[in-house]
Amino acid sequence: MAIDFRPRWTDTDLELYRDTAVRFIEREMLPDDGAARQRGHVGHALWRRAGEVGLLCSDIPEQWGGGGGDFRHEAVLYEEMARRSLTGMSVSVHSIVAHYILNHGTEAQKARYLPRMASGELVGAIAMTEPGAGSDLQGIRTRAIRAGGEYVINGAKTFITNGLLAGLVLVVARTAPEQGSRGISILIVETAGCQGYRVGQPLDKIGLRAQDTSELFFDDVRVPADMLLGGEEGRGFAQLMSDLPYERLIIAVMAVAMMEGAYHETLAYVRERMAFGKPVAEFQNTRFKLAGVATSVKAARAFVDRCVEDLVEGRLDTVTASMAKAWASDLQGKVVDECLQLFGGYGYTNDYLIGRMYVDARVQRIYGGTNEIMMEVVARAL
Amino acid sequence: MAIDFRPRWTDTDLELYRDTAVRFIEREMLPDDGAARQRGHVGHALWRRAGEVGLLCSDIPEQWGGGGGDFRHEAVLYEEMARRSLTGMSVSVHSIVAHYILNHGTEAQKARYLPRMASGELVGAIAMTEPGAGSDLQGIRTRAIRAGGEYVINGAKTFITNGLLAGLVLVVARTAPEQGSRGISILIVETAGCQGYRVGQPLDKIGLRAQDTSELFFDDVRVPADMLLGGEEGRGFAQLMSDLPYERLIIAVMAVAMMEGAYHETLAYVRERMAFGKPVAEFQNTRFKLAGVATSVKAARAFVDRCVEDLVEGRLDTVTASMAKAWASDLQGKVVDECLQLFGGYGYTNDYLIGRMYVDARVQRIYGGTNEIMMEVVARAL
Amino acid sequence: MAIDFRPRWTDTDLELYRDTAVRFIEREMLPDDGAARQRGHVGHALWRRAGEVGLLCSDIPEQWGGGGGDFRHEAVLYEEMARRSLTGMSVSVHSIVAHYILNHGTEAQKARYLPRMASGELVGAIAMTEPGAGSDLQGIRTRAIRAGGEYVINGAKTFITNGLLAGLVLVVARTAPEQGSRGISILIVETAGCQGYRVGQPLDKIGLRAQDTSELFFDDVRVPADMLLGGEEGRGFAQLMSDLPYERLIIAVMAVAMMEGAYHETLAYVRERMAFGKPVAEFQNTRFKLAGVATSVKAARAFVDRCVEDLVEGRLDTVTASMAKAWASDLQGKVVDECLQLFGGYGYTNDYLIGRMYVDARVQRIYGGTNEIMMEVVARAL
Amino acid sequence: MAIDFRPRWTDTDLELYRDTAVRFIEREMLPDDGAARQRGHVGHALWRRAGEVGLLCSDIPEQWGGGGGDFRHEAVLYEEMARRSLTGMSVSVHSIVAHYILNHGTEAQKARYLPRMASGELVGAIAMTEPGAGSDLQGIRTRAIRAGGEYVINGAKTFITNGLLAGLVLVVARTAPEQGSRGISILIVETAGCQGYRVGQPLDKIGLRAQDTSELFFDDVRVPADMLLGGEEGRGFAQLMSDLPYERLIIAVMAVAMMEGAYHETLAYVRERMAFGKPVAEFQNTRFKLAGVATSVKAARAFVDRCVEDLVEGRLDTVTASMAKAWASDLQGKVVDECLQLFGGYGYTNDYLIGRMYVDARVQRIYGGTNEIMMEVVARAL
Ligand SMILES: Cc1cc2nc3c(=O)[nH]c(=O)nc-3n(C[C@H](O)[C@H](O)[C@H](O)COP(=O)(O)OP(=O)(O)OC[C@H]3O[C@@H](n4cnc5c(N)ncnc54)[C@H](O)[C@@H]3O)c2cc1C
Ligand SMILES: Cc1cc2nc3c(=O)[nH]c(=O)nc-3n(C[C@H](O)[C@H](O)[C@H](O)COP(=O)(O)OP(=O)(O)OC[C@H]3O[C@@H](n4cnc5c(N)ncnc54)[C@H](O)[C@@H]3O)c2cc1C
Ligand SMILES: Cc1cc2nc3c(=O)[nH]c(=O)nc-3n(C[C@H](O)[C@H](O)[C@H](O)COP(=O)(O)OP(=O)(O)OC[C@H]3O[C@@H](n4cnc5c(N)ncnc54)[C@H](O)[C@@H]3O)c2cc1C
Ligand SMILES: Cc1cc2nc3c(=O)[nH]c(=O)nc-3n(C[C@H](O)[C@H](O)[C@H](O)COP(=O)(O)OP(=O)(O)OC[C@H]3O[C@@H](n4cnc5c(N)ncnc54)[C@H](O)[C@@H]3O)c2cc1C
Repeated sequence: MAIDFRPRWTDTDLELYRDTAVRFIEREMLPDDGAARQRGHVGHALWRRAGEVGLLCSDIPEQWGGGGGDFRHEAVLYEEMARRSLTGMSVSVHSIVAHYILNHGTEAQKARYLPRMASGELVGAIAMTEPGAGSDLQGIRTRAIRAGGEYVINGAKTFITNGLLAGLVLVVARTAPEQGSRGISILIVETAGCQGYRVGQPLDKIGLRAQDTSELFFDDVRVPADMLLGGEEGRGFAQLMSDLPYERLIIAVMAVAMMEGAYHETLAYVRERMAFGKPVAEFQNTRFKLAGVATSVKAARAFVDRCVEDLVEGRLDTVTASMAKAWASDLQGKVVDECLQLFGGYGYTNDYLIGRMYVDARVQRIYGGTNEIMMEVVARAL
Repeated sequence: MAIDFRPRWTDTDLELYRDTAVRFIEREMLPDDGAARQRGHVGHALWRRAGEVGLLCSDIPEQWGGGGGDFRHEAVLYEEMARRSLTGMSVSVHSIVAHYILNHGTEAQKARYLPRMASGELVGAIAMTEPGAGSDLQGIRTRAIRAGGEYVINGAKTFITNGLLAGLVLVVARTAPEQGSRGISILIVETAGCQGYRVGQPLDKIGLRAQDTSELFFDDVRVPADMLLGGEEGRGFAQLMSDLPYERLIIAVMAVAMMEGAYHETLAYVRERMAFGKPVAEFQNTRFKLAGVATSVKAARAFVDRCVEDLVEGRLDTVTASMAKAWASDLQGKVVDECLQLFGGYGYTNDYLIGRMYVDARVQRIYGGTNEIMMEVVARAL
Repeated sequence: MAIDFRPRWTDTDLELYRDTAVRFIEREMLPDDGAARQRGHVGHALWRRAGEVGLLCSDIPEQWGGGGGDFRHEAVLYEEMARRSLTGMSVSVHSIVAHYILNHGTEAQKARYLPRMASGELVGAIAMTEPGAGSDLQGIRTRAIRAGGEYVINGAKTFITNGLLAGLVLVVARTAPEQGSRGISILIVETAGCQGYRVGQPLDKIGLRAQDTSELFFDDVRVPADMLLGGEEGRGFAQLMSDLPYERLIIAVMAVAMMEGAYHETLAYVRERMAFGKPVAEFQNTRFKLAGVATSVKAARAFVDRCVEDLVEGRLDTVTASMAKAWASDLQGKVVDECLQLFGGYGYTNDYLIGRMYVDARVQRIYGGTNEIMMEVVARAL
Repeated sequence: MAIDFRPRWTDTDLELYRDTAVRFIEREMLPDDGAARQRGHVGHALWRRAGEVGLLCSDIPEQWGGGGGDFRHEAVLYEEMARRSLTGMSVSVHSIVAHYILNHGTEAQKARYLPRMASGELVGAIAMTEPGAGSDLQGIRTRAIRAGGEYVINGAKTFITNGLLAGLVLVVARTAPEQGSRGISILIVETAGCQGYRVGQPLDKIGLRAQDTSELFFDDVRVPADMLLGGEEGRGFAQLMSDLPYERLIIAVMAVAMMEGAYHETLAYVRERMAFGKPVAEFQNTRFKLAGVATSVKAARAFVDRCVEDLVEGRLDTVTASMAKAWASDLQGKVVDECLQLFGGYGYTNDYLIGRMYVDARVQRIYGGTNEIMMEVVARAL
């Protein structure tokens, strides 16, 4: 009897969708992953192919070119990528961007961008973090000053996922610099042919080597005034807050799936690998370590599944999502570390999935709000 | 906004039942707990009162005098006792015994015992462990040898919960000594006036001081042949195995509830307690520790809730229940330990709930199968 | 080859002294420990016997009736008691009190008290903590107001080790209430026949059951003005600070020794105890757990040994001593917990050394300054 | 007052030697480290320069061209490289190889190789591990069959440190295949112009990117019979065993130094980095984390210092060295992980020392014998 980690929230339709995702992943992503890690990005073609087969914007209404599904469709795709540590193409950030537009954009903005995001023509990015402001978003300095029918954007952003390939960047900026969090707005920037917009060198990260995380520079970038997300100034902070459960749950979903992937991969390895005349799987230390891993994964699955169900039913609060993000990513760190150890020297190489997982997993405790910030959020709610 | 740990599986009826349980606990158990810890047992009267108000055998069909509910009713009671560390009256072992009779007993056995167990007249105990055999039940030596219309039982048992107060003891014994696990049967022993039956000194445990854990001695104890559980020899091991999910989940349920209790109690304490001019609750270390505890409890709640739902629907397997037992009790140890620390010196006293929890919690990783044995069970299923 | 945990700082003389200590402990302390845990104290006779054989004030100069040794002599005794979890007779607090008198007392105070402390006639206690002030000593309210040739003491102290048996109590009190830490002094109170002095009920602790930790009440207690420690008002805080390395290192020394004791006891147990046809010591999980324990103890031994050497040479600073206190007591908690688990159900009883260790060890992270306060001390020095 | 982590075993001479090492490191290693990580090796020139300034073979007698120092000189160099995560040039493996020759080689072998190793002309490597045998060295298959005045070597090795640059490889091989560990010998292979010897692609490791870890292939490689280490067949296993304390202690020394480096780097960072209007260093969570790190480092320093002193005095046993290796590298993993977190997103990049440390540190629990094998070694000695 093998241990069953199937999500509780799945059904036949979703499993069919999963088959599509797996086929795409195995045919189009896996074979290129090594090269993408060298290159530092997955390339535009892959995004377009993903759009073609219907894997982008799966939870955006069909009316806007999306898949018409719900968060579970998104989760299916994240799971299948995360369990293989295919971390180059950040569909998650892309979807987050699409959700900002869906939830807060004007009708014109939705019509203009969502279909092109669903097709993969436009890759989405969101630029909050700056060299001087990460956890504390209120410290951002980028400005978008209204000048006639335009906003003039100046500033520098860093650590922007999909930064190189992005065709559409949501820029969090101060439209009323003197006003604190009330003076923050989100601007939509189309990068193609954009004057004054520059993508820096790709960041030399220890993992996520296929992901194009970049610095972005804005020097007198001008966008038409209707590029203000939602059309009203000073709403940026509230817009950012309202989508947090969605964003944080994605990280938790990926954590669980990577742990499952690590578990299966490790189990297979230790059954094959011989030492002292028997499979490594037969040492009691190995057995207990893997039993512990399986137990953790089972618990994590239950927790995150419940959050997924709650999100789909519209009742997942930010505190619970922050808990899930922190707890699952912490656990992911431990689980991947323990699994790697069971591979001996081979675990220390990029040739093995577990080695790639190790370097990729580390960031999960940092981005999307560090786990310390998650604890702050929870502590405030006690 | 306070964090919500309500079980997902509850409903209005169950919450009414919970009110009954809480009333009973607060009126009849709490006030006597200190004295019971001195005495080493809760006394027969309490069991009878619990029976009267309908708190015993809540998941045994009404036909046999039970409450006609399901596992969730049991869980409600365990939760409310565990969150107050009222560990003297082991309703759980009592219910486990009732389930053996319900699931494996003959009609006559059910009719004879279940109503008296539901009323609290007969307290149930189950005697597996022996001085020389705990984890490895196949090592037991107690014998029940058929002699005419009787079985003659000889042997010694130890660590038997409810040992002093028990009116009915299920004795796991060898009926066919030469046959390994196939030669093991369960005998029903009524202790009242039973010749050759003796209860030893109560064990001097570090915690569960109100619980009458005892050694039991059987010297030529004679019981009629129809006291064989189920009426067929050699079925003991299979009978024991089949009820494991139920037994292990109880421990997990209690773990979660005690953690919740510890969390609430600690939060209240640190809000009141002042140091260096402010409430202890305001130090970031305290805040992060409690946020971590709340997060753990939330995860544990989700995992155990799912197991409860699965059990009620008849699909909880032994492996998952063993995971839940080990994982939840490990976490309980950590959580209670961390909470105690936040009480400073007061946490180290029996006057504070957290101090009693600390000593009570430790056993959860040991009884019901040690957590090492749980890992063995899981490892075999990988 | 057995693993060697001998302290580096020992020598032949010290080992002879150790023999004396062990003989005393095995003949006079061990046999009564169970009864003392029932009673709640070890009794005056034991203190006198310890004085007779030269085990008290071993590091006080001979001139004052002491043993004329150094901290290593003290350490030898703490080690031998701690490895057996003989925690009833707090020689450590006694020695700390003697050191206050030695280091800060007037000649008259030394002459009057040290010889009687060395003989065991006077048991020492130090009363800092109050119901409302533990970590934050500046919050104490007990007052000692000068009135003519006397001080009049009013206030309540709690958690006072040796509280019941103490003949001499150092009371930390405000002599100049309006002055903050500068207004704090230490008064010497002889308890015999002291008017207005009252010892409360012994605290009902979860461990250290043989230790008489008590509340002390001072209602208009009058002491002659020359009972002011050192003879100068307002020096209390400085006096307390200057002895911290000594006090904290004692806790670390006891932690290491208890871990060694736990290790040896557990190793012996698992070698004897059989499960599944072999000694529990042969399961790889057991082997790795014990190897981990042995490794931790070895590291702890090295760290604490170095601190002992530094203390003897007069160069142990408060920060390093605080590190040792926190680190060693944290580790002690983990090690004792892991060892207990290997005893199965037996570990959960007071009949086994490991069970008593478990409840005794918990306080080490709390008293002598909580480990959070230790981290504060270290953090300030970074 | 800053916390002092200076090794206890150092003295003025050693600190002068340290200055030399630091100068070399800062002038010649640091500036090239980024390029070396790209290239995958540090290049021959660096080795020669290190030889010139006297940093190679510092504990080999002057008679053989070495520095005439002891293990402390080696330790000084490892410390200064490890605290900067300069992991490309494995002086440690080089020294280990030199020690094999010194301790087990014939006079001719010493004379032929040690001077050239000390000058950096010949880089040393030791080839034990094979694709099919890592932890279990008895499983190696590489053969060295005597044929006239030569040995003919066939087999494949993997994970060989300094594999690309090595001029001298010690090859562990079976000279008497049928004889188990008694049939194992060590052969000296000079790689320059060696027929049948081939270095594989550099391994694509997740860290130690500047270190040329390689596969080595031996196809009918012929070496003169006097290339047998020590001149006697079947001594290989014993030779390997006798140098274990030396090898394992090196890893522990590097672990401590890297932790110190991580601590200092992190402290500096959090003091500068602002969030929510104050330095990150001022949040209590940061303060306690760093205090915990400092405490761990202090303990580790004490443990490893004692081992160094013991090694220098010739009394460090394999068990204690194995404890130090496992314990220190485990701790290193935790400490570096915690420090990285305090850098937020920047910690996840190779531009920051802490990011490089993170990927470099992971291997310390694996090579030199995995930490599981260390626990086996310890367990056998209990
Ligand atoms: C691979 C990657 C992808 C990313 N993608 C994006 C992206 O697409 N868009 C984007 O906008 N950003 C992105 N980020 C940035 C990320 O969100 C930030 O790195 C993160 O929020 C932390 O900010 P920081 O790095 O400035 O750390 P800092 O805010 O400087 O934090 C430093 C340390 O201080 C701690 N700290 C801060 N405040 C407190 C407090 N109150 N109490 C205790 N501790 C505290 C932090 O937890 C951390 O440990 C990405 C980062 C990475 C590494
Ligand atoms: C308060 C309390 C109440 C109890 N109530 C009851 C009751 O009502 N009825 C009843 O029958 N029993 C009861 N027990 C007994 C309990 O079930 C046993 O204590 C438990 O099963 C462990 O058995 P043991 O104590 O003999 O430990 P042992 O079996 O001797 O185990 C010793 C150690 O070896 C470990 N170990 C054993 N096998 C392996 C393995 N294969 N691999 C690795 N490690 C292993 C164990 O985990 C443990 O750490 C109770 C115990 C307590 C403390
Ligand atoms: C068995 C025993 C023996 C004792 N013996 C003596 C004795 O002989 N003489 C004597 O005077 N006292 C004695 N004590 C008292 C002991 O020193 C105190 O219990 C201890 O100092 C903690 O004080 P508290 O209990 O008031 O906890 P509090 O000070 O109320 O602390 C509560 C919690 O807050 C935390 N906390 C406090 N300040 C901070 C901060 N700045 N940042 C983060 N967390 C913080 C603490 O760590 C703790 O977790 C004894 C205590 C015990 C249990
Ligand atoms: C960067 C790097 C540099 C290296 N340099 C060298 C070098 O210079 N020369 C050289 O010869 N080798 C070198 N090695 C190889 C290294 O020594 C081995 O990787 C290591 O000994 C483990 O062997 P393995 O990788 O084959 O793992 P395996 O032996 O296959 O082990 C797999 C897993 O099983 C576990 N395991 C094995 N036996 C037991 C047991 N009895 N009980 C429980 N668990 C067990 C292991 O701990 C591990 O977790 C290097 C490795 C690396 C990564």
